[in-house]
Amino acid sequence: MNGQLARSLGAQDERTARAVWSRLTEPGDRKAHRFAEDLGVAAALQAVAEGNDPRVQACWRVRLPDIDVHRDLDRLELLGGRLVIPGDPQWPAGLDDLDDRAPFCLWARGPLEPGPETEGSVAVVGARAASGYGEHVAVEFGFGLAEQGRTVVSGAAYGIDAAAHRGALSAGGATVTVLACGVDRPYPRGNHGLIERIAAQGCVVSEVPPGCSPTRWRFVQRNRLIAALTGATVVVEAALRSGTSITAREAGDLGRQVAAVPGPVTSPTSAGCHELLRLGAVCVTCVGDVVELVSRVGEGLVGRPPTPTAEHDGLPPDDLRVLDAVPLRRAAPAGTVARTAGLDPQQVATTLARLELRGLVQSGPSGWVRCAVKR
Amino acid sequence: MNGQLARSLGAQDERTARAVWSRLTEPGDRKAHRFAEDLGVAAALQAVAEGNDPRVQACWRVRLPDIDVHRDLDRLELLGGRLVIPGDPQWPAGLDDLDDRAPFCLWARGPLEPGPETEGSVAVVGARAASGYGEHVAVEFGFGLAEQGRTVVSGAAYGIDAAAHRGALSAGGATVTVLACGVDRPYPRGNHGLIERIAAQGCVVSEVPPGCSPTRWRFVQRNRLIAALTGATVVVEAALRSGTSITAREAGDLGRQVAAVPGPVTSPTSAGCHELLRLGAVCVTCVGDVVELVSRVGEGLVGRPPTPTAEHDGLPPDDLRVLDAVPLRRAAPAGTVARTAGLDPQQVATTLARLELRGLVQSGPSGWVRCAVKR
Repeated sequence: MNGQLARSLGAQDERTARAVWSRLTEPGDRKAHRFAEDLGVAAALQAVAEGNDPRVQACWRVRLPDIDVHRDLDRLELLGGRLVIPGDPQWPAGLDDLDDRAPFCLWARGPLEPGPETEGSVAVVGARAASGYGEHVAVEFGFGLAEQGRTVVSGAAYGIDAAAHRGALSAGGATVTVLACGVDRPYPRGNHGLIERIAAQGCVVSEVPPGCSPTRWRFVQRNRLIAALTGATVVVEAALRSGTSITAREAGDLGRQVAAVPGPVTSPTSAGCHELLRLGAVCVTCVGDVVELVSRVGEGLVGRPPTPTAEHDGLPPDDLRVLDAVPLRRAAPAGTVARTAGLDPQQVATTLARLELRGLVQSGPSGWVRCAVKR
Repeated sequence: MNGQLARSLGAQDERTARAVWSRLTEPGDRKAHRFAEDLGVAAALQAVAEGNDPRVQACWRVRLPDIDVHRDLDRLELLGGRLVIPGDPQWPAGLDDLDDRAPFCLWARGPLEPGPETEGSVAVVGARAASGYGEHVAVEFGFGLAEQGRTVVSGAAYGIDAAAHRGALSAGGATVTVLACGVDRPYPRGNHGLIERIAAQGCVVSEVPPGCSPTRWRFVQRNRLIAALTGATVVVEAALRSGTSITAREAGDLGRQVAAVPGPVTSPTSAGCHELLRLGAVCVTCVGDVVELVSRVGEGLVGRPPTPTAEHDGLPPDDLRVLDAVPLRRAAPAGTVARTAGLDPQQVATTLARLELRGLVQSGPSGWVRCAVKR
């Protein structure tokens, strides 16, 4: 490496140095993170260019000849984007929980901040090959959460991710997508329009510079950002042994809530969710369940759908026994009711009067009979 | 009460005395159970007839005038049934866990013993107003469990119960139904044929004598027997706040396993199952899951469906990064692969050789290219 490159790289301000690091290394490089933390990102960069420090990994140097950080930054600016680095007020605090796997910076587009209030926001993720059922639930959750003022974070993949984003956008709410490629390269292509809408209304972020392609490794690492940016990860649909389970595991390891939406046991796209439930994930069935998960005690309880009530609700067991012993059609004297119920006749007389007051039974010349059930 | 009746009631052998107690009292009468335990069932019966003991409840005496235990026993005999009491080798040990809520006796019909090996048998229960999905799962579970030699216990109600019994019968397996009415009164009427088939192939039991009608109280109490007779209670479908949840709670209180089958969150008949999952029930999705639940360590593991495998399974992360960096179509030299992967060129050369041995990449005059994926 020539001395000029070393000097020019070392002379960067922290923001630019972090942009360079994000191109030199692959996401989640713990050694790079620790080395840069140790020397300071700019000095560490110079050390990489000089190549004398024994801690410098050969793999950090392979991309040095191609480095053109100003081209990357210009490309971002052209898209109306900005680089967000630790220390910026917009830096998502949740990312610091990743420790030495935290990204060097975030390449961000869109009017929203990339760092939603971590605890209150929700990752809604799942299978690309989702079922109609899964997409329906993802849209509902995306919409409902956005409506409740929650930020919906996902990965813009086909299927569940896209449905969750779409739901949030329809509610006019906040949504953030974390890409495994550069923010100038909407991937997958089929979700180009969706990603552009998120860039216009929400936020599109990536830890890799513009122009980078999405690799399997970057997809895997992207999941840790989705988990770290949110207070809870909700898996709507997932096959067994899928990428989604990585996001769920990351969330669990980071101490975030992990939830799964159940589905038919006959559906392979719910098998991963059921596996998560067996491993201790919270079973969520409605927006209220999810909001409860990311709410502080007493805050924002949406409540669950009301449960049906029956005419005999709240009756003590003996009253229920007497009620059951009163004929539906042909009236019977109190003594017969007592015998049928197997209860003390005196007690039964009192109970019958109480049930009459509640409008459940009525008495006539030939005895007691049930009232018609009101529905 | 006349002295003759008192003497005749007190003079019964234990078996007959228990039959009388089962008619005098309603299921789950703790005071009756403790009183009879204390004096012995026959002496306690005499005390009830005499009515002098202060512990005798008035409600135990209301049905005394109608008692005709020999008519009850004759009716059972006519059906080819038998009375099973504690101490009989056929008495289900699991019922003793009910303590002072244990039944006085079981009125039983059918070639099977009413007491299956408790730990290994399974209660499959659920909603009467089941969905097609729920009935499908219940039949599958009933069939699969019976096929694995497990006894399927349920309540012969419409919907899930009936489907579970039917599944077990189709497998030619063991199934026990616990009725809330007398074993001579198939209820519900629409399941008359099913209950008769169970009486012919399995076992139909009740704790109330022949002729007794099913009351709400008896339905509720019946659930404790289903829970006590089995090692696990599996709820296939249940609405919120349903009778099925009582069986599940009984099972939990008795230290039995409680499991629930997930379903679509859009289905009200799965809402009770999801509630149970939130309360800590085990999520079961296949027969293997259930068998595992009631198996001793190492015994009878049926296994779960195999998970799909991919060509890159088990590759270490760096190998995966190299694989992803190898072009799919136009070959690239090792140096380019290293730069794309962001890895040390020497390491990449070794990795490429290893991937070639696995048949994942191949080299040619212009460099490295991916092999076609084998499916």
